[in-house]
Amino acid sequence: MDARTRKKTLRLLSNGVYVLTSRNEDRYGAATVSWVSQASFKPPLIMVAVRRESNVFRCLAESRAAVLHVVGDRQQEIARRFFSPTEAACGTINGEAFMEGRTTAPVLPNLPAYIECQVERIVDTDGDHAVVILRVVEAECRDQVRPLTIAESPWEYGG
Amino acid sequence: MDARTRKKTLRLLSNGVYVLTSRNEDRYGAATVSWVSQASFKPPLIMVAVRRESNVFRCLAESRAAVLHVVGDRQQEIARRFFSPTEAACGTINGEAFMEGRTTAPVLPNLPAYIECQVERIVDTDGDHAVVILRVVEAECRDQVRPLTIAESPWEYGG
Repeated sequence: MDARTRKKTLRLLSNGVYVLTSRNEDRYGAATVSWVSQASFKPPLIMVAVRRESNVFRCLAESRAAVLHVVGDRQQEIARRFFSPTEAACGTINGEAFMEGRTTAPVLPNLPAYIECQVERIVDTDGDHAVVILRVVEAECRDQVRPLTIAESPWEYGG
Repeated sequence: MDARTRKKTLRLLSNGVYVLTSRNEDRYGAATVSWVSQASFKPPLIMVAVRRESNVFRCLAESRAAVLHVVGDRQQEIARRFFSPTEAACGTINGEAFMEGRTTAPVLPNLPAYIECQVERIVDTDGDHAVVILRVVEAECRDQVRPLTIAESPWEYGG
């Protein structure tokens, strides 16, 4: 298999841009992610591939809760903030205000929609990302959200 | 959690439109799917949520191989063919010509790109779809593919 063809082909998979947050006691994790999809209607499950060495993965593995935020199509700058390592201070994470969700995981009110979840299962694969199956326990959505996609962003993630 | 808000929010997750094929000896399975994402760079893995009662799920669970095809943005009619139960006859599946891939799973040459995979793992969840982790073993891609997304299609799948 040609590595360049494989990369080009895998980059044809369509994904959105999201911010995933979690918290374990006084430690916070937040990261921009794009490998996300729904995985079941009943019960409502989503699946997210998350870098194992990230703060957000460690927090969600310990606390068993996380919040997936949809980024709006004009909110690239907010997504970009969560490319950096997590820094929580004075009621903000990476400079973004947050509130406490139903699970106590952080909710970022500047993002237009979110899905709050409990961790259903962390799947062992030999991959460089963990596959996390999340059960939806809460959802909020403002009207007229147009989600940012990887294809419409300046970034690529895949290959 | 309000069911309408949950549905509206989950439909903000961005997905593409794909045709997933598989074969076990003389039985074939093919279905249009959209709950797909990459799940690892090294090794290259993808994750796909597939209805458990589908032909394609039964074939891939038995043969341990499947092909994920990218649908181009002007190929809605091909995707629509695979909403129907699988019918293989005279070298076609649901009316589409196919060839044998490296794993012997069917490759549809009218679709512009495909990712051929071995089944790495089928994850038990209590959901109505199985989460299938696939390892990429082959990929092919024509130039200038613009992938069809659910958002740009007439269909919705999520909620």
